[in-house]
Amino acid sequence: MAIVVVGSVAYDGIKSPSGHIDRCLGGAATYFALAASYFTQIRIVAVVGDDFSKQDEDVFRAHKVDTRGIEHAKGKSFFWRGEYGDNLNEAKTLETQLNVFQNFNPQVPPEYLDSEFLFLANIDPVLQSNVRRQMDGRVKLVGGDTMNYWITDPHHRKNLFETLRGVDVLLINDNEAKLIAAETSVPRAARKILQLGPRALVIKHGEYGATVFFKDREFGGGNHPFRAPALPMEEVCDPTGAGDSFAGGFMGYIASQKKVDREVFKRAMFYGGVMGSFAVERFGTERLQTLSREEIDARYQVFRELTHIG
Amino acid sequence: MAIVVVGSVAYDGIKSPSGHIDRCLGGAATYFALAASYFTQIRIVAVVGDDFSKQDEDVFRAHKVDTRGIEHAKGKSFFWRGEYGDNLNEAKTLETQLNVFQNFNPQVPPEYLDSEFLFLANIDPVLQSNVRRQMDGRVKLVGGDTMNYWITDPHHRKNLFETLRGVDVLLINDNEAKLIAAETSVPRAARKILQLGPRALVIKHGEYGATVFFKDREFGGGNHPFRAPALPMEEVCDPTGAGDSFAGGFMGYIASQKKVDREVFKRAMFYGGVMGSFAVERFGTERLQTLSREEIDARYQVFRELTHIG
Repeated sequence: MAIVVVGSVAYDGIKSPSGHIDRCLGGAATYFALAASYFTQIRIVAVVGDDFSKQDEDVFRAHKVDTRGIEHAKGKSFFWRGEYGDNLNEAKTLETQLNVFQNFNPQVPPEYLDSEFLFLANIDPVLQSNVRRQMDGRVKLVGGDTMNYWITDPHHRKNLFETLRGVDVLLINDNEAKLIAAETSVPRAARKILQLGPRALVIKHGEYGATVFFKDREFGGGNHPFRAPALPMEEVCDPTGAGDSFAGGFMGYIASQKKVDREVFKRAMFYGGVMGSFAVERFGTERLQTLSREEIDARYQVFRELTHIG
Repeated sequence: MAIVVVGSVAYDGIKSPSGHIDRCLGGAATYFALAASYFTQIRIVAVVGDDFSKQDEDVFRAHKVDTRGIEHAKGKSFFWRGEYGDNLNEAKTLETQLNVFQNFNPQVPPEYLDSEFLFLANIDPVLQSNVRRQMDGRVKLVGGDTMNYWITDPHHRKNLFETLRGVDVLLINDNEAKLIAAETSVPRAARKILQLGPRALVIKHGEYGATVFFKDREFGGGNHPFRAPALPMEEVCDPTGAGDSFAGGFMGYIASQKKVDREVFKRAMFYGGVMGSFAVERFGTERLQTLSREEIDARYQVFRELTHIG
């Protein structure tokens, strides 16, 4: 089943303890699309500038990602430059040029409208709601992401809460969960957020993995959470896009299955971790571009052995 | 198989967001002994003052813990008073009275010397090495713990590294691992620490669980780590002793098994998490005093369901 993803397609400049890269293909929708493309068909809604290269468009083509929803606007593409210190969980933003992204008014192409899955990557909640509405009545499952900026600003927060009512599965990190719920405990925050709309909530814990919390009786089960690991890695080259790659593996796997139940969610949590672990091995999307489904499934087995008692 | 544990038997005063208690039985050896007592026979080496009550001695008796190694010295028992804020991972120490603990010179009673397991709870590394020597030639497996104070002070650090040469399984938290190895990455720190003596290293991640790293070929396997979860809990009443209770469940389960291999380690990691999760449900050792093996095994199943794909 196809997934429509709306979000940023951008260029990044990244510095980490492992090295640096001045300019590479990035953006939340890019990481999501490449990670998910190993599981199912992906359709992007985004905007790029006239600096967007043929070579980068070919990256999507190589993964059979539908780019008809990528608008080509006059001006430059969204550009982000950031740096990671020893704490690889936090990027220090050095530069943000919104460029064509500033006037982004996402339009879902008619050809996308039969898609049963939708992922709202981290953009203005108003745009997320807008795309959600364009897909109304067609989608079976809506995933979503957000960030501190939209959560803490009172105006955006109101819009975000409106968006959450139309999101089935929200994927955020510990800190974002605490900020949304105004809680200091992650499990308490989870319970509160599940009253705002989402039927399932994936909370990412960085190097420690992720937990999915369910609203009681949703997706065929009670309210027992499930925890998936992250891979203990001696070298993380570039954490950029790890969360979006997790979401891509997670949603991609779900969309590839005949039904969406608890067992599918559990395996999807593992595939999310797997794709996140690949993403951070190289700068930018390099590693995500060159994977095979065999490598992905081999690492899935590593995740199993890491957590399962024989 | 019996485990000898050396460490503190103390009184604690604890304040947390859930309430407070002015004085209750505490100390690393106490939490360890009670948690491990559900799996095997425990023998304590410690020192208490003349304020140590018959009632508290009876707590050990009720769990068939051998207290012949508890020295009764003139003066007061070790007393610690601390407070937890919203971040339950860190206690703020308000008061420490070493009292009789200041001159603690641990003596392993002759009746303990046939024990095959030894746990060196967090005390001066010189005393840990001393007890290790007294048990030389008898023990099959030595577990150990330590803390920042012994790691960062140059004099104590030297002694600690000497102790580590005689420890088979070291149990510490993320920050302690980074400090011992002078590394910023936990998996890199793990590899370094496994070159200092320990054949296995359990690194505890607080609310996210714990990872065990192995030296290649030790305990019948390669160098693949294993991750155990912690239980997502909405209310943590009192985190005091969670790490010692983890160690108690972990070592207690290992000592109860016929052989010590990777599969036993994996289950021991789960039992460690289980005992830690019980410990924090009430103030002090209250919850650890009233458990049944059935409750423990039921929660072990919850840990399995939390992590295992059907």
